[in-house]
Amino acid sequence: MLDRYYDELEVGTTWHSSRGRTITEADIVMFAALSGDWYPLHTDKEWAGKTRFGQRIAHGLLVLSICSGMWPIKPGAVVAFYGIEKLRFTAPTFIGDTIYVKLEVLGKEDRGAGQGVVTLQLEATNQRQETVIAATLKILMNKRPA
Amino acid sequence: MLDRYYDELEVGTTWHSSRGRTITEADIVMFAALSGDWYPLHTDKEWAGKTRFGQRIAHGLLVLSICSGMWPIKPGAVVAFYGIEKLRFTAPTFIGDTIYVKLEVLGKEDRGAGQGVVTLQLEATNQRQETVIAATLKILMNKRPA
Amino acid sequence: MLDRYYDELEVGTTWHSSRGRTITEADIVMFAALSGDWYPLHTDKEWAGKTRFGQRIAHGLLVLSICSGMWPIKPGAVVAFYGIEKLRFTAPTFIGDTIYVKLEVLGKEDRGAGQGVVTLQLEATNQRQETVIAATLKILMNKRPA
Amino acid sequence: MLDRYYDELEVGTTWHSSRGRTITEADIVMFAALSGDWYPLHTDKEWAGKTRFGQRIAHGLLVLSICSGMWPIKPGAVVAFYGIEKLRFTAPTFIGDTIYVKLEVLGKEDRGAGQGVVTLQLEATNQRQETVIAATLKILMNKRPA
Amino acid sequence: MLDRYYDELEVGTTWHSSRGRTITEADIVMFAALSGDWYPLHTDKEWAGKTRFGQRIAHGLLVLSICSGMWPIKPGAVVAFYGIEKLRFTAPTFIGDTIYVKLEVLGKEDRGAGQGVVTLQLEATNQRQETVIAATLKILMNKRPA
Amino acid sequence: MLDRYYDELEVGTTWHSSRGRTITEADIVMFAALSGDWYPLHTDKEWAGKTRFGQRIAHGLLVLSICSGMWPIKPGAVVAFYGIEKLRFTAPTFIGDTIYVKLEVLGKEDRGAGQGVVTLQLEATNQRQETVIAATLKILMNKRPA
Repeated sequence: MLDRYYDELEVGTTWHSSRGRTITEADIVMFAALSGDWYPLHTDKEWAGKTRFGQRIAHGLLVLSICSGMWPIKPGAVVAFYGIEKLRFTAPTFIGDTIYVKLEVLGKEDRGAGQGVVTLQLEATNQRQETVIAATLKILMNKRPA
Repeated sequence: MLDRYYDELEVGTTWHSSRGRTITEADIVMFAALSGDWYPLHTDKEWAGKTRFGQRIAHGLLVLSICSGMWPIKPGAVVAFYGIEKLRFTAPTFIGDTIYVKLEVLGKEDRGAGQGVVTLQLEATNQRQETVIAATLKILMNKRPA
Repeated sequence: MLDRYYDELEVGTTWHSSRGRTITEADIVMFAALSGDWYPLHTDKEWAGKTRFGQRIAHGLLVLSICSGMWPIKPGAVVAFYGIEKLRFTAPTFIGDTIYVKLEVLGKEDRGAGQGVVTLQLEATNQRQETVIAATLKILMNKRPA
Repeated sequence: MLDRYYDELEVGTTWHSSRGRTITEADIVMFAALSGDWYPLHTDKEWAGKTRFGQRIAHGLLVLSICSGMWPIKPGAVVAFYGIEKLRFTAPTFIGDTIYVKLEVLGKEDRGAGQGVVTLQLEATNQRQETVIAATLKILMNKRPA
Repeated sequence: MLDRYYDELEVGTTWHSSRGRTITEADIVMFAALSGDWYPLHTDKEWAGKTRFGQRIAHGLLVLSICSGMWPIKPGAVVAFYGIEKLRFTAPTFIGDTIYVKLEVLGKEDRGAGQGVVTLQLEATNQRQETVIAATLKILMNKRPA
Repeated sequence: MLDRYYDELEVGTTWHSSRGRTITEADIVMFAALSGDWYPLHTDKEWAGKTRFGQRIAHGLLVLSICSGMWPIKPGAVVAFYGIEKLRFTAPTFIGDTIYVKLEVLGKEDRGAGQGVVTLQLEATNQRQETVIAATLKILMNKRPA
């Protein structure tokens, strides 16, 4: 998907990750560490055990970050990650869950000068076929060099 | 900010981080590692040097994640991070830049049953007073226990 | 506690952490890695299984370091961590244990010139209400700016 | 072994690690992160569960790297790690396995000028006495300073 | 390259990484940490400064590990990394160097039963066009499923 | 030092680390991450630049932890790290400083039953020959097995 140029993508083009990634306790600890977010729902087994989740859950931004590392990106095709139009964390990710990613081109906006903005629908699912993240992303991409 | 309950927040309430955090080369390498996103704009000095940025830049999601770790959260006040309404990465973060965070309550939505959704405006700035992230976040919070 | 100035603390003032932190296998591996201390009591399941602990235990300095990250510190209030008066590792921390921290002001020593040394009693406990660390710390603090 | 000089080693000299190291899920995640190798056999519990291994296995290069950190090296004795003559990953390493290392001097090659190349046989075994790596290494070493 | 099946590769087929990766001080510290190899040539600026390299250099196995994470692997195409036929670390990698990878199929060996062993020549180069690693690898691969 | 048994140590026995370790920016970031202590004196370049240190300094507990990983420990010789009698952080450690460790046996206390407590004086110095940590440690050790 992001391994192609702007003009090689069509509205409706989809991409599925060819692998999953299991979210481990180590991932959650490392993300808490790197981000500084030690909210006990993620990092305190005793406390999390008393919430409605019954256990620790992964940080939503950890799952989103992991998704962003699962799609191949062609150097030179992507100029910049513009932003997020809308994002919902729709289900919790528990330790040991495995995440898969789907992307779909929702829209294209020609900016002239060899570039365009692509709107992508990101859907992250787990091994129980639950959607855990649904988001609309904006990416500035290059057209294929002449 | 998130160290208070739903009913203790007012539209217009603001919070500024009392410290900054310098984004180091190590942060970028660790985020590339954890997320799996080794796009050369973040991790290849030679390649990044030839882009319009002239150097490597931090992943947008790294900066967002770091912001999420800078505000204090009272255990029990926050139920869940619902999602993002809109987010823009408005300026690059270079190695050695220092990030500060500002939050402002934009809206409140009572959900009854002791909970409510708070809409927050997040603004991340650097030591040059440039805004690097502007985002609208939705957080599900508890009211103060009776 | 350390989010106040020297003159805002009284002998006898106490502070309890509002959250716990579960010590995971990942924490122990990361501390072994960062410190270089791979003593098999911490990192060799077979060997540790034959000691009187029956399993791997966390490094004492890991637990102490984690305690040091659990209390909020007001930038400008703390000048320097002077040292430790006395410290005892009083019980082992196993993988999966959760740690809580209590601080109490034991003494204050005015140094003039806007500063003073505070003596703190640190007590770390686990989810079984066992004390795992008891220590007396010396911190150089600022008085509230005029 | 590598804590001695070239002329203090004999063909046939052996060394056994005095400790083992348990390969944890955290080690595998950290190695996947650092190397960028997220092949699902190492990092996707669902996918690995369907292979002939029935579970995730450690990266071969992780186990080799861990071996390289288990032998003591005298600063000044080793000049450079020349290379590997032959290496076989002979059995999988599962999460929770513990690794031990044995080295044996296979050959010595005097290079004059105070240096020589030592050929070492590396054998890594686990707690089930299975050999997981067998390799022949070439190390450039210094002779004892006069 | 490893994103194809055994029968889709020909002797002489080559693959070049589409991105480079800069080896940072953080990478070296993290590899020293994970492996346990703190040899001062890699981690002691003062000591390394007095060697013929004049500065710290990356661990050879770090550079090899990073290479292994730069090629795309199709899940299901690779069965196992068999081993290394011969490997030479031919030039040092300094902090800030950027690494690129080239693979070439040297040989194929049909094993029947839907599998075969591929012999690959790995060449890692830096931004000065120096070869830093030359190695021959053996990989057990699947044929394309019928 | 800790690679010998209780009865093989004498009051006055000393040990010097055969290598140094350079404290990097990555070490400080990783320790801030793992401990959760993001005090700006360690992690905010702008803020630290205005203190009397003029730059970021390493956490005292990071330097102490690194010291603890520099001495070799014989498995079975050390039973437990009892505690610290007194510890002073006597000088700051800046990014790029290199640390060396010296241990000296100050006292021995026979506990019968094959064990004894050793009191050690730890001194950490840097490349400018400044003492950065002075501490008295208590270690419970085994006597040589009969």
